[in-house]
Amino acid sequence: MDLLSFNILEYKERLEKTKQRMVAEGIDVLLVTDPANMSYLTGYNAWSFYVHQLVVVIIDKDQPYWIGRGQDASAAKHTSWLDDAHIIPYQDDYVQSTIKHPMDFVCDFLKEKKQDKRTIGVEMDAYYFTGRNYVQLTGGLPDAAFKDGTNLVNWVRIIKSDQEIEYIKRAAKIAEKAMGAAVDTINEGVRQCDVVAAISHAQISGTEDFGGDYPSIVPLLPTGEKTSACHLTWTDDVFKDGDPVIIELAGCYKRYHSPMARTVVVGKPTDQLQYIAAVVIEGLNAALDAIKPGMTCEEVEQVWRKSIEKSGIKKESRVGYSIGLNYPPDWGEHTASLRPSDYTILKPNMTFHLIPGIWLDHVGIEISESFRVTENGCEVLADFPRELLIQPNIRLA
Amino acid sequence: MDLLSFNILEYKERLEKTKQRMVAEGIDVLLVTDPANMSYLTGYNAWSFYVHQLVVVIIDKDQPYWIGRGQDASAAKHTSWLDDAHIIPYQDDYVQSTIKHPMDFVCDFLKEKKQDKRTIGVEMDAYYFTGRNYVQLTGGLPDAAFKDGTNLVNWVRIIKSDQEIEYIKRAAKIAEKAMGAAVDTINEGVRQCDVVAAISHAQISGTEDFGGDYPSIVPLLPTGEKTSACHLTWTDDVFKDGDPVIIELAGCYKRYHSPMARTVVVGKPTDQLQYIAAVVIEGLNAALDAIKPGMTCEEVEQVWRKSIEKSGIKKESRVGYSIGLNYPPDWGEHTASLRPSDYTILKPNMTFHLIPGIWLDHVGIEISESFRVTENGCEVLADFPRELLIQPNIRLA
Repeated sequence: MDLLSFNILEYKERLEKTKQRMVAEGIDVLLVTDPANMSYLTGYNAWSFYVHQLVVVIIDKDQPYWIGRGQDASAAKHTSWLDDAHIIPYQDDYVQSTIKHPMDFVCDFLKEKKQDKRTIGVEMDAYYFTGRNYVQLTGGLPDAAFKDGTNLVNWVRIIKSDQEIEYIKRAAKIAEKAMGAAVDTINEGVRQCDVVAAISHAQISGTEDFGGDYPSIVPLLPTGEKTSACHLTWTDDVFKDGDPVIIELAGCYKRYHSPMARTVVVGKPTDQLQYIAAVVIEGLNAALDAIKPGMTCEEVEQVWRKSIEKSGIKKESRVGYSIGLNYPPDWGEHTASLRPSDYTILKPNMTFHLIPGIWLDHVGIEISESFRVTENGCEVLADFPRELLIQPNIRLA
Repeated sequence: MDLLSFNILEYKERLEKTKQRMVAEGIDVLLVTDPANMSYLTGYNAWSFYVHQLVVVIIDKDQPYWIGRGQDASAAKHTSWLDDAHIIPYQDDYVQSTIKHPMDFVCDFLKEKKQDKRTIGVEMDAYYFTGRNYVQLTGGLPDAAFKDGTNLVNWVRIIKSDQEIEYIKRAAKIAEKAMGAAVDTINEGVRQCDVVAAISHAQISGTEDFGGDYPSIVPLLPTGEKTSACHLTWTDDVFKDGDPVIIELAGCYKRYHSPMARTVVVGKPTDQLQYIAAVVIEGLNAALDAIKPGMTCEEVEQVWRKSIEKSGIKKESRVGYSIGLNYPPDWGEHTASLRPSDYTILKPNMTFHLIPGIWLDHVGIEISESFRVTENGCEVLADFPRELLIQPNIRLA
């Protein structure tokens, strides 16, 4: 456990909160397959989520169990607070086999530990919890009752500890550096891939004081007409005069994220682009000014919606979501979203990415901020000009 | 479809081969959720797999349907060969909702298209096909029969076209550059994160002639005693004299991968390390010399096993796997593995990552090669010294 990111007491507190929710849901045994939840509860941190693995929380046991591939047990020893008796490797012939499945091993384990007649929670809609996992578990444990434990641990994660906030603030510093690298590099005739290489270098090298971790999403870089398609990655095409470029990225420190989006124009922006940017920034400012503990997520969205109403621009999708610890493919926590019908009440040390992107048929704009809810308002995490950015700057003169 | 990676005829051929397998399996409608399979069949390419999306292949229809989030429909138009009528967006309130699920939308769509009384194949054990997906589909389509279509498209992917091989060769060129950046940067007192920043920069900027894409796995960099844990990522610790460092990375071009691993020692290697490295290289060479069409995967592993037998070193895990087009979290294709009981017969234009890593309790070594099966042997894809690398080189003198 030489790579542990938090004090053991913090992990134990997380475990306790998880068990309280398990009691409320009537779950005796929780099978945690979401890599972020696994890491949150145990510290486990390795790129091994491409094979089946999980953490087993048993309501009346002090330590969870990690179950994973044999060659990853050593990573569990280095990165988690679990003792060796709670690190349970399965043999390599379970990997991507058509004959045996890792969940069969999990069934045998639960039987051996006499947990097979209890109520078992599974993260039904979590990444990496496959349909096959569900069928093998329910088939292999006929005496167990199954309940949906999707997002149970995610909801524990929504309020951050002070140390988690410190990690997210470090991530925000890295995000500033990465966005700076992007803006400094974009120019007519430069290849998109060379800009993203500069971003990625900044994301990973971090600052002089601390290094960066890999963000859960690669830099997104829709360019030109393709700014209408927000989740496109880069190509090796070169930027042309007049291209708008959306840059969505995050800084990441010890798996904690602070995302940020900006839009850069190569050369002179069109009137339309300037108009949309002004609307987006006004909405962003209005929401950030209003946010305080006690508001609901829905109310935040309403402030934003009211602000842009007069512009005639319409937007169907949510304007933000809870962020923090995560693994690919997402830095969002899948709990609170800033959108109608989300009645989550904002509390201090919740953290969100507020991203009211506007995507029309042939052009799109993203200007976003990540924020922390404070005792009486909110704090924007990164410090970067909140404007439509023009490159090279000289053209503004 | 301005970003299409292959000629439409190649996509149609892939679709035809997929349908042949569907007929053989008695599947009328295949729901393809694996992002690599989605891309393989339609060209679709965006970082949107963090929400539910799929491609629907109907046995008696000319074009598949793409179903995904509204804001990603524009990416489908830019990157796939499908016409607009086959791009079906769902509303944003399906995203991470506790009230409605994207698979409910899929059920409605299949009913509307009168496909709800047929035999439906689902990729039961594919990434991103969750237990919830399975339950919503089977519950919502009570008149359909369900069959497991896991890896059905993956098996079509296993033999590459000449254009795919060209992409993989470009990926290998990028892998050479990235590994070169790693070896040039590692040194006593240098931070791990700064080495990975250099690797990532090289991976993404690619070569002067073509840019790089994001590999499906970030660079892995277990260092010192932690070389026993093959899937650890980096920290911001500095390298110390005597540290062994495992570097596993891939070059990626238009989503096609060519992985490579090397082990570098900072300063002077121990006798043990030199011994294990020699064993690994001898086994690697023996396997590469033997590989030719007609052999089974099991036989390749046997050649390697026989070669290292006398060393006394034991290894339980597989020594390689099929590679190609992929998305996070894995660049492996989940079809053929080089291991006992895998009777897949090698054929020309299959591509593999041969990675006979050895991980002992306190030290590990990885030296690997990716290869293409040729008409009468195999071709190693990247050209990089196949040895235990010493840094700085001067110390060897």
